[in-house]
Amino acid sequence: MSNTSIKGITNIGQWVTWNPEKQAMEVGNGGTWLMENGLFSEYTPKSFMDHEFLNAHGQLMTPGLIDSHTHPAFATTRELEFEMRSQGKTYQEIAEAGGGIRNSVRKLREISEFELVDLIETRLNLMLKHGTTTAECKSGYGLSTEAELKSLRAIRTASQRTPLQTFSTLLGAHEVPDEYRDDRNTYIDIIVNDMIPAVSGQKLAAYCDVFCEEGVYTTQETEKILLAAREHGMQLKFHADEFVSSGGAELAARMGALSADHLMAISATGITALAESDTVATLLPGTTFFLGSNTWAPARKLLDAGVTVALATDFNPGSNMSLSMPFILTLAVIYLHMTPLEALQAATSGAAKSMGIEKNTGSISPGFKADAVVWQVDNYRQLPYFYGSNQVHQIVVGAEPIL
Amino acid sequence: MSNTSIKGITNIGQWVTWNPEKQAMEVGNGGTWLMENGLFSEYTPKSFMDHEFLNAHGQLMTPGLIDSHTHPAFATTRELEFEMRSQGKTYQEIAEAGGGIRNSVRKLREISEFELVDLIETRLNLMLKHGTTTAECKSGYGLSTEAELKSLRAIRTASQRTPLQTFSTLLGAHEVPDEYRDDRNTYIDIIVNDMIPAVSGQKLAAYCDVFCEEGVYTTQETEKILLAAREHGMQLKFHADEFVSSGGAELAARMGALSADHLMAISATGITALAESDTVATLLPGTTFFLGSNTWAPARKLLDAGVTVALATDFNPGSNMSLSMPFILTLAVIYLHMTPLEALQAATSGAAKSMGIEKNTGSISPGFKADAVVWQVDNYRQLPYFYGSNQVHQIVVGAEPIL
Repeated sequence: MSNTSIKGITNIGQWVTWNPEKQAMEVGNGGTWLMENGLFSEYTPKSFMDHEFLNAHGQLMTPGLIDSHTHPAFATTRELEFEMRSQGKTYQEIAEAGGGIRNSVRKLREISEFELVDLIETRLNLMLKHGTTTAECKSGYGLSTEAELKSLRAIRTASQRTPLQTFSTLLGAHEVPDEYRDDRNTYIDIIVNDMIPAVSGQKLAAYCDVFCEEGVYTTQETEKILLAAREHGMQLKFHADEFVSSGGAELAARMGALSADHLMAISATGITALAESDTVATLLPGTTFFLGSNTWAPARKLLDAGVTVALATDFNPGSNMSLSMPFILTLAVIYLHMTPLEALQAATSGAAKSMGIEKNTGSISPGFKADAVVWQVDNYRQLPYFYGSNQVHQIVVGAEPIL
Repeated sequence: MSNTSIKGITNIGQWVTWNPEKQAMEVGNGGTWLMENGLFSEYTPKSFMDHEFLNAHGQLMTPGLIDSHTHPAFATTRELEFEMRSQGKTYQEIAEAGGGIRNSVRKLREISEFELVDLIETRLNLMLKHGTTTAECKSGYGLSTEAELKSLRAIRTASQRTPLQTFSTLLGAHEVPDEYRDDRNTYIDIIVNDMIPAVSGQKLAAYCDVFCEEGVYTTQETEKILLAAREHGMQLKFHADEFVSSGGAELAARMGALSADHLMAISATGITALAESDTVATLLPGTTFFLGSNTWAPARKLLDAGVTVALATDFNPGSNMSLSMPFILTLAVIYLHMTPLEALQAATSGAAKSMGIEKNTGSISPGFKADAVVWQVDNYRQLPYFYGSNQVHQIVVGAEPIL
């Protein structure tokens, strides 16, 4: 326990959390959540005036938000493509004209690791400032063993410089790089035989992900890559059924992946497959919003089928240039028709499950990591409701106040 | 000129503004905008190290944003209705069940003026923190002479406590209050013969506005109220054609109103009428967004017809609980298909015209009020593109730095 740790958060107004014993969301009022050794220890209805406690001043306390799907390792922003899209070009048209992910790949290969670390550090600190205390961070703009390793090292270095807790994902199969356009099998062999062993050997990634989608990687290719990743000790994630239903969700469930992400085009079979598995459905409504699409992931169908849902930003320079989790809660309520409580669950314990860390992160409960946010609002419904301005009052990570 | 005034903003990266001489947007790079007596004086390509200048560190400088349509004088938030809507109730159904504007009216009448001032002050400061330096503020939740006067006095007092410049609007005709449901003509007589003279006598409002819409006020009723307002020296604004095309835009143009606002349902005739007038079309895409609607105002048709467009938040507790102008720029680009430059024009000089202050506010030009924002981005396209987190680096109002 460091010198800057607090003994707890006191004078709480409302506190809201997933309760792992009751397996349900819980809403409490008043009192103090005590902390010890960086973890929550117990709740007491008393409040304390002691300056070693953080005073919530009667405001809302939630677990730190968990952003379980981000792409922060990019070299340059792509605002010109954003303007082109608004004037009528589609994402696919821009990609075919040399924009899109391939644009980011050229830039990522050119940038120095030193510069990349700085960029990622700035982005992680902005996430933290807006309430995210844990983030999953993907590589995927390098598309060569060298550039993917550079990305993952940069994420690790940047992460060590911020209090935000990160877990990395190898996404070498984000796209097929230009130099292997006509020889995709060779690139897949590089991922399987070179990239995955190297990343695993240097312990640079906890997870491996594939963009399983029509025009990107087929389910057969995805399975080949992810079987190799599993053999090297990585857990599995999927970009699945974003534009077309191609069996990605079904494959994710069958392979026991931690999560299947996007799912705007998931089929009824896919929903059933997820419901019968432990795979989490990670929904990214910011991407639908940013692309100006009307196709929202079928959150209600997934929830009603009993699937665990996570919400995340998909922060990336092409299809969602935003790292605000509170805004994702707003989209989830308005456009996915989730209740504010369901949305908050999905942004904390649901997200933790999608990262395999649900036993110790994402809940205000004894023994869980003491990550919390005090918000300048009275109750949890106001979080998604009062949107567009930063409502964070204070962030606590591992019992240490950050702001 | 106060002791805290700066001599200018120096080391600018990119600066973007409406140029009133060229009648076009202008994008410049580098140098310094000098200030004198609270106004911009001249531009020089030189930069200065003097600490009496604000150093922009090579970042983007824009005019202060102008939010030309807000409803900040409300007593309580309405997050429960927000949740109900997400679970399938419509805005109209909630209004008929006693929610909506009538819910806000009951609460506004109960709250003390002292408490209301505090609430408005907090909201104005949040606007300022997110880049808004001038705001139009409406009454309209009182719906009695006493409660409308209370609202307008509270706006004035709150405004005096913040650097944000506000202009007030009497919106006594926001709804018909419950006690006159069956006797609406009596309420209209009260507005005309009691409310308008009282507000005008105490110089509490620059503008008068009416919710001209099917089920609220007819065009005949609107005309009667606004003729009275004009006789008392107020300029005119309209809530027009939000849900149904009922001739509101046409009437606004015919009466020489400063602006017709909302316009999601404007007819072709309405667009032509605005194009042939000086009336500004004020678009409020945050409301479409927050109501989960797919009906966006026809911005491109308005722009292509030559209508001056303004963008504003419509900040209010029922149909858009957000005071972020940068987010409105994002919506304008993605959903109204405006270019980033058109959106920025609409949020500065277009908005100024909708408030009749375009001769001295909303432009970085000699003689204009020295209101500006330095943003943590490189260029103007990044403003709407990198959304959901607050990109403000520094705010300057009347040559004084605020943050």
